[in-house]
Amino acid sequence: MGTVPLLSDSEAPPESLAVFDEIREARGTDYVNNFWRALAHDPALLRATWERAAHVMAPGALHPLVKELIYIAVSTANGCAYCVHSHTSAARAKGMTPDQHAELLAVIAMASQTNALATALAVPVDDRFDEAQL
Amino acid sequence: MGTVPLLSDSEAPPESLAVFDEIREARGTDYVNNFWRALAHDPALLRATWERAAHVMAPGALHPLVKELIYIAVSTANGCAYCVHSHTSAARAKGMTPDQHAELLAVIAMASQTNALATALAVPVDDRFDEAQL
Amino acid sequence: MGTVPLLSDSEAPPESLAVFDEIREARGTDYVNNFWRALAHDPALLRATWERAAHVMAPGALHPLVKELIYIAVSTANGCAYCVHSHTSAARAKGMTPDQHAELLAVIAMASQTNALATALAVPVDDRFDEAQL
Amino acid sequence: MGTVPLLSDSEAPPESLAVFDEIREARGTDYVNNFWRALAHDPALLRATWERAAHVMAPGALHPLVKELIYIAVSTANGCAYCVHSHTSAARAKGMTPDQHAELLAVIAMASQTNALATALAVPVDDRFDEAQL
Amino acid sequence: MGTVPLLSDSEAPPESLAVFDEIREARGTDYVNNFWRALAHDPALLRATWERAAHVMAPGALHPLVKELIYIAVSTANGCAYCVHSHTSAARAKGMTPDQHAELLAVIAMASQTNALATALAVPVDDRFDEAQL
Amino acid sequence: MGTVPLLSDSEAPPESLAVFDEIREARGTDYVNNFWRALAHDPALLRATWERAAHVMAPGALHPLVKELIYIAVSTANGCAYCVHSHTSAARAKGMTPDQHAELLAVIAMASQTNALATALAVPVDDRFDEAQL
Repeated sequence: MGTVPLLSDSEAPPESLAVFDEIREARGTDYVNNFWRALAHDPALLRATWERAAHVMAPGALHPLVKELIYIAVSTANGCAYCVHSHTSAARAKGMTPDQHAELLAVIAMASQTNALATALAVPVDDRFDEAQL
Repeated sequence: MGTVPLLSDSEAPPESLAVFDEIREARGTDYVNNFWRALAHDPALLRATWERAAHVMAPGALHPLVKELIYIAVSTANGCAYCVHSHTSAARAKGMTPDQHAELLAVIAMASQTNALATALAVPVDDRFDEAQL
Repeated sequence: MGTVPLLSDSEAPPESLAVFDEIREARGTDYVNNFWRALAHDPALLRATWERAAHVMAPGALHPLVKELIYIAVSTANGCAYCVHSHTSAARAKGMTPDQHAELLAVIAMASQTNALATALAVPVDDRFDEAQL
Repeated sequence: MGTVPLLSDSEAPPESLAVFDEIREARGTDYVNNFWRALAHDPALLRATWERAAHVMAPGALHPLVKELIYIAVSTANGCAYCVHSHTSAARAKGMTPDQHAELLAVIAMASQTNALATALAVPVDDRFDEAQL
Repeated sequence: MGTVPLLSDSEAPPESLAVFDEIREARGTDYVNNFWRALAHDPALLRATWERAAHVMAPGALHPLVKELIYIAVSTANGCAYCVHSHTSAARAKGMTPDQHAELLAVIAMASQTNALATALAVPVDDRFDEAQL
Repeated sequence: MGTVPLLSDSEAPPESLAVFDEIREARGTDYVNNFWRALAHDPALLRATWERAAHVMAPGALHPLVKELIYIAVSTANGCAYCVHSHTSAARAKGMTPDQHAELLAVIAMASQTNALATALAVPVDDRFDEAQL
C-alpha cells in the first residue's frame, strides 16, 4: 500500500537526503525506515517531523522506554498499524521485556473497555477531577 | 449528562454496595467516583470491571504511575473526557510531576501527528518490523 | 455547546419546518430534538438525513430495537455523546430492558478491548476469514 | 503483519495450550484463530480475555447473533480489520443472512454519518435525554 | 482482505450492474473500483451510497478538489486506508499538486496533534465559540 | 472541565506570556483563547505548538480558509469538541459562508459513512490506487 512512492536515496531531493543522514547518525544504523522515505517528498515536512520527534522522544522527565510505551498506546487507539509496528520495534530496542509488553497490552485493553463504558454511560466528570473550574 | 442515573449508596443494589466498599478500602477514601456509581446498575459488570482494573493496574513489570500515563494516552486518543480526568487525577495521586505531565502531553501530540501522517501516506510496514511473517 | 444556533419553529426556514412536521408525525410527539434543530440551517441536508434515517431504521430483516443497539454501539465507539444519549433514549422507547442495556454495555466493552489487542498485536487476518481473495 | 510471532501448538506455553483446548471444545473445531495465537505469549492475558469473551458472548437477554452484530459495529467504528473479519465470520456461523448483513451495514453507515454531523455541529444534549441530572 | 467477495460484472445483480454503468458514465472510464464491487451485494445500499456521493461531491459552494481534500482528511482521521487511497487518487485526478498534497498532510498532522492536546487537557470551550447558548 | 487550571496573564510564566503576546499580535485581538491558556503551564510546548500552527496555517498552496475546513474535518472525525468550536469560529472569521459550511458538513458526513462501509466490508485497495508498490 501507499499513496506516494517511497523514495530511495537516489530519488530523494537533497534536503531530504540530509535528513536521512541525520536519522542514520542519530540511530547508529544505515537503515532509514519507510515512514521517512514516504515523507521525503516534502523536505520541509520531513525535517519538521524528524526534528520534533527527536526532541520529544529524548530522555527527560520520562524514561525513553516509557515514551515508547505511550507512543504504542496512542498508535493502538488511533489504529495506526505502521506506528504500532515501528514503535513496538523501537520499544524492544530500548529494552522492553516480554512482561512489560504483556502489561502494556493489558493496560491498553483495560483503558479501551472503560473508555467505552464511560462513553456509553456518558458519566459526568466528578467535580473533584475538574481542575479548570471557571 | 448521563444515560443512566448515578446510584447513591442507598440506591445501589447490595452486590454493588459491596463493590463500593472494596473500592473504598483499596483506595483508602470514602469517595466513590461517578464511573462506579453509573456501573452500579449492573452489579456483575461493576464487579468484573473493578476486579479486572484492580488486577491490571497493580504494580508489576511496569510501575503503577507508568500504567496511569498509558491509560491517559489511550483515553485521550479515544476521546474519553471522563477517563482523561479521572486518570490524570490518579496519575497525580501516584506522583506525576508537572514536568512528567508536560512530556506525556508532548509524546501524545507527537504520536497523534505521526499516526495521521502514516495513515494519510498509507506507509507500508517495513519487513524488519513484521514479527508474524507467515 | 454548539457551532450553530438551534432553530426554533419560528426561526426555521419553511422547508425545514416541513421536515419538523414529518418528524413529529412519524414519532407521534410534538417534540423535535436538538439534532434536527441544528441541521435545520440547511433544509436539504436536514431532509436527506431525516429521510435516510427513517428508511434505514424502519423494520426489516433486523428488529428496530436491534438497530438501535447497533446505533448505540457505533456512537459509543465514535465518541458521540449526543448520539449515545438520543439513541439510548430511543432504544428504551422501543423496549430495551435494563438487562439488555447491561449486556449491550458488556459487548461494547469486550469488543473495545479485543479491538485494541488485535491492533496492538497487528494480528494478520486468517485466510479463512477472507472472503475477497483476489 | 504482526508485532509478535503467532504461536503454533508446539510453540505455545502449556497454560496457553490449555486455553487453546478450551477454545477448541467450546467451538467444536480444531482451528484456533490467529488472535488467540498472538495472545498466547502471555497465558494470563489469553485466559482472562478468552474467559471474559466466552461469558459476555453467551446467550442472555440478547441473542448471540445480536451480540455479534454489535461486535461488528464496534469493530468497524474502531477500525479493527481483524475483528471485523473474525466477527463477520462468526455472525454468519450464527445464522446472519445477507439481508441482515446489508441492514447492519446500512445502520453502521447511518450512525457514522449522524455521529459526524452531531459532532461537527456540537449539538447540546436535550434535557430529556439526560438521565444523570445531578 | 474482504468480508464479502467483490462482484464482477457477470456476478453482480442487474440493479447493481445498472449502478456500475452510471458510475462508468459519470467518470468517463470503464473501471469500477472495488468499493462499489463490494457494495454490489445490496443494490439498494449501492444505489443510495452512489447517488448521495455523486450529489455531495458535485461542484457547489466548495470546489470539487476542496471536497476531495476534506474527504482525505476525514478518512485519515477515521483510519480508513481504502478511502485514503481512493480519494488521494481522485484528488490528483482533479488537479491536486504535490505542494497542495504536502500542505494537506501538514494541516492534518497539525489538527491531529492539537486535537489530542485539547482532549488531554480537556480545555473548556470559550463562551465566544459557543453559538448554541441556550 | 479541564485537567489543568487555565492560566490568566498574571498567573502565566513569563515565557508563556511572551507567546500570548505573539498570539495577540498575529490575530489583532486582545483575546487569548482557553487552549493556549491551558498549554501555558509548559512554555516550551506552548511555543512549539503555536509556532508550528502559525506556520502550517499560513497562506501557501492552499487557501487559509481551505485549511480551516480541513482542520474542522479532522477535528470532527477525532471527536474534539473544543477544536470543532474554535476552528468553526476561525473559518467564519476567514469568510466561510453558510453554504460552504453546509457543504463541508455534507462531505464530512459522506466520508464518515463510506469510511465505515469500506471498513466493514474490508475492501481491498485497488492496484491502481497503490503508489508505493514495492
